Amino acid sequence: MKQDKILVIGAGAIGGFYGALLAKAGSDVSVVCRSDYEIVKKQGFTIDSTKLGQWTFKPSQVLNNAADYADNADYIFLCTKVIPENNRAQLINKAVRANTCIVIIQNGIDIEQELVDAFPNNEIISGLAFICCNKIKAGAIHHLAYGKLTLGSVTHPSDKPLHLSNLIKKTGIESNISDNIISSRWLKCLWNAAFNPLSVLSSGLSTQKILSIQEPLIRTIMQEVCAIAQDCGHPLPADSIDINISNTQTMPPYKTSMLLDYQKRQPMEIEAILGNTIRIAKKHGTACPTLDTLYALMKLKEKSKYPEKP
Amino acid sequence: MKQDKILVIGAGAIGGFYGALLAKAGSDVSVVCRSDYEIVKKQGFTIDSTKLGQWTFKPSQVLNNAADYADNADYIFLCTKVIPENNRAQLINKAVRANTCIVIIQNGIDIEQELVDAFPNNEIISGLAFICCNKIKAGAIHHLAYGKLTLGSVTHPSDKPLHLSNLIKKTGIESNISDNIISSRWLKCLWNAAFNPLSVLSSGLSTQKILSIQEPLIRTIMQEVCAIAQDCGHPLPADSIDINISNTQTMPPYKTSMLLDYQKRQPMEIEAILGNTIRIAKKHGTACPTLDTLYALMKLKEKSKYPEKP
Repeated sequence: MKQDKILVIGAGAIGGFYGALLAKAGSDVSVVCRSDYEIVKKQGFTIDSTKLGQWTFKPSQVLNNAADYADNADYIFLCTKVIPENNRAQLINKAVRANTCIVIIQNGIDIEQELVDAFPNNEIISGLAFICCNKIKAGAIHHLAYGKLTLGSVTHPSDKPLHLSNLIKKTGIESNISDNIISSRWLKCLWNAAFNPLSVLSSGLSTQKILSIQEPLIRTIMQEVCAIAQDCGHPLPADSIDINISNTQTMPPYKTSMLLDYQKRQPMEIEAILGNTIRIAKKHGTACPTLDTLYALMKLKEKSKYPEKP
Repeated sequence: MKQDKILVIGAGAIGGFYGALLAKAGSDVSVVCRSDYEIVKKQGFTIDSTKLGQWTFKPSQVLNNAADYADNADYIFLCTKVIPENNRAQLINKAVRANTCIVIIQNGIDIEQELVDAFPNNEIISGLAFICCNKIKAGAIHHLAYGKLTLGSVTHPSDKPLHLSNLIKKTGIESNISDNIISSRWLKCLWNAAFNPLSVLSSGLSTQKILSIQEPLIRTIMQEVCAIAQDCGHPLPADSIDINISNTQTMPPYKTSMLLDYQKRQPMEIEAILGNTIRIAKKHGTACPTLDTLYALMKLKEKSKYPEKP
């Protein structure tokens, strides 16, 4: 069987971890990482996983820029943050060939169309990482829990999502295929829209602590997301909220990605997670006053000068 | 004319400043202050006012406790924070005589009844301080701007509000009488319910900055307060919101009292300003999803360990 050529663009915690898994499964994996380029070039990634143990992932090529990729990618895994500062099509453009399938492993709602428009002839797979995984320092990734990768094509049915899913499963990490990846994305948004902003606005309380003090607020936020998902044609299962809440109660202590970004004074995925969700609500006339408030508060918060003390 | 005996209980920025004014106007003013007792006992208060200049206010008696007041108070000015930790009736109880009129200069909504119930035979005046005034260190008060004191009896009509108002006006600070002090309190709540929580949740952005980034959120909050006030029988003038917003735009840079409390890790007036407002809304069936969200977020925030860096 031919070895897949995979280029991971945005090799932070998520990109680095799944890149390492795909390499473990036998693929030829290269990475584009900007902030940690020097150290990853020299040492590769150190992965410390509570499930799979410790190992070092040495990418085939470590690059500063997708344009430097000296190969023909079967798959590009796009794993950067989704923030207005990142032009995602531009980030990957130079490495996309006719046969390249683009796999989006990113947070947020309504983040596929931009790439479908930019690369109308390429297959595009949307992916959701249900994982607790942090970059603890340059080139060092800590995988705390979970890891399931859900994949589904957003352009045309093919066997590629299943193929990638099988590669991941070979490594001992869960993976599945979603026939409706957009609905699955809404399901993930339920958690993200609640816990990401609240972890920042509460000055870094843990997800469990937030839940123990303000479960009603969490439920209100999730109900609003459910209503929006329903109104735009992606109704979520009736027990989605209860399942999300009970899962969070048993999660290990975890800092959300927005909280990590805020504490590092890096751009937060406010638009991808809250802004896009609210814009869909407005389009369909769905009321979401709690999300409106969180969004406005997060836009204030990103303008503040003083992050919380570490 | 007989000199009024006035006891100020809770001589922080507000209590210290109006106590100093009443002394300036010729009254015999004593204070109960707990945290700054030693220094005020020794040096009195230093008042630095952009309107009235600098002076020292030496109270007749400086006390740790109202029970130590060696006199018969014509007026008790109650100026502590309104927080669940403070039993306000108990704080003043030992100094209340048959003739004592209780003057409440405190923040919040629905804060009078507790005292009316505890002292059913005493006249109770409710007061609103429209002032930018901070304690900059123990015994030192900085009066930045404004200062109008609005007074109105909540028990029975008398000439006492007018008498006190005239004393204040003698010092060059504005004061007036409200025939419906409860409606006036709702009008003040408009500003407090918006800017106090937002200054904390935004990590200390100035009121002007908040307004420049999120005027729509401010208006939404104020509209909810207007609706609640209306539904409980205190309709506010139609231009209240516009006036509040344009006044805030021309205010000097100001830290709200909640922000100061949060930064000092002291209890915030979340219940007095938001909790009581929301409980009245629930009683009357008035929807206030934005206030609900702010209240829940502030309850999370007060549980957080890390205040913003100074």
